Amino acid sequence: MKLLGVVLPLFLLAASHLCSAEDAVAARLIHILRPKFGSAGTGAKMKGVSCSSWQLAVETDNLRDWSTIPAGCESYLGHYMLGGRYRNDSRVVADSAVEYALSLQRFHRNTDIWIFDVDETSLSNLPYFSQHGFGVQPYNKWRFGKWVMKGAAPPLPETLRLYKVLVSVGIKVVFLTGRTAEYRNATVYNLKKAGYHTWEKLILRSANQGGTALQYKSEVRARLERGGLRIVGNIGDQWSDILGSPEGERTFKLPDPMYYIS
Amino acid sequence: MKLLGVVLPLFLLAASHLCSAEDAVAARLIHILRPKFGSAGTGAKMKGVSCSSWQLAVETDNLRDWSTIPAGCESYLGHYMLGGRYRNDSRVVADSAVEYALSLQRFHRNTDIWIFDVDETSLSNLPYFSQHGFGVQPYNKWRFGKWVMKGAAPPLPETLRLYKVLVSVGIKVVFLTGRTAEYRNATVYNLKKAGYHTWEKLILRSANQGGTALQYKSEVRARLERGGLRIVGNIGDQWSDILGSPEGERTFKLPDPMYYIS
Repeated sequence: MKLLGVVLPLFLLAASHLCSAEDAVAARLIHILRPKFGSAGTGAKMKGVSCSSWQLAVETDNLRDWSTIPAGCESYLGHYMLGGRYRNDSRVVADSAVEYALSLQRFHRNTDIWIFDVDETSLSNLPYFSQHGFGVQPYNKWRFGKWVMKGAAPPLPETLRLYKVLVSVGIKVVFLTGRTAEYRNATVYNLKKAGYHTWEKLILRSANQGGTALQYKSEVRARLERGGLRIVGNIGDQWSDILGSPEGERTFKLPDPMYYIS
Repeated sequence: MKLLGVVLPLFLLAASHLCSAEDAVAARLIHILRPKFGSAGTGAKMKGVSCSSWQLAVETDNLRDWSTIPAGCESYLGHYMLGGRYRNDSRVVADSAVEYALSLQRFHRNTDIWIFDVDETSLSNLPYFSQHGFGVQPYNKWRFGKWVMKGAAPPLPETLRLYKVLVSVGIKVVFLTGRTAEYRNATVYNLKKAGYHTWEKLILRSANQGGTALQYKSEVRARLERGGLRIVGNIGDQWSDILGSPEGERTFKLPDPMYYIS
């Protein structure tokens, strides 16, 4: 899985960047490896519950406060993340968000913003997680921090597409992330490299800020609104990104079966 | 599909009631028909989007205000609803709700309530929808009303299990439904027949009450809280059952890919 973990995300997340000789080699490798990946079916089980039922319960916020994915579901989720379904599921969310954004007849260039979460929303850490069991390994702050510092995460192409539409129609973008302030430079570097060239604000968490992500993000959104901004849209992969008043006028939940943030 | 529509829900939703000679005949038929049903895979498509991606987008509230399921997904959803996945997905939700309910150390017998939606939560209209394309046909108020008047809907067994746990530990149940007052008697009859023998309140909508289901249900919950009740849990199949302040201390979303209520 390690090799696939390195190679496939490049293909899946940055196919448009396949331009160098190295990438061409990777592409051929992928062509050989690709048939091993499919939908994984719905039969994989953990404790009598199918992995697909577990996944749906996670995506609908019925299962909360879990720390790692069920051990029996690593292969299922690997197939899900790399085999096309993750991208397809994300695409429908982005399509829906783009349709909504384009339907906004009157918006105010100075005050209307759209909030983007960063990890597993704007940027994808699949290259990291594919090497760490897709969430079956407990979260390792040090190791993940090292990965973040590289600034090497590819964009989630669906979110980048939404971002470009918003920029083109004049809705401002605010990145709001649970990443702490020490990662500001790496995050700026990574976002630009991934294709997010401009934004209104990039809001990181201060290291000493307590409370859940839900509380933190709700408070920031409330502050933005008190400052006169109108949150027309809000997209994230965690329910803690998009629940908690004020949520924004319309929220969008991207799939993320790999980890849970409360 | 018509024959299966009549026979299979009896098996799937009320297997414990297979006691008469007619039911025994049905059971044999089911045994023959059953192998035709499976997971349906994830490959079914509509407009380039897989039905499973459409379904996930619906279940996560990313797609809203749709009136009928995509025509190309009727077979996929029929398999989903009748082939075991719907039951499995519902089971994980109920398991999670039961675990939460049992974790409530101190609750107040006089004030603590749990809100249950009725259609596709407490009662299943699968026998009806399996004969009407699993949501591919536009909602027909008259025909659906005729079905409701029969009082013949089986329980969703997972919800009935949760209900029994709540009753056994002393948490009171309030049914809150978008069904209008003319269906009170049929609903009382059906709930009791399905195994829901006792409740604190059964709140139906008055025929002239405007607004969305989300507004109506939020207002009712606010009224209940003003009356001194504490909503410890809230379960429904629509996001309009469980969004809108006050939501209840914990909410649970059952699957329902067949229709959308805003």
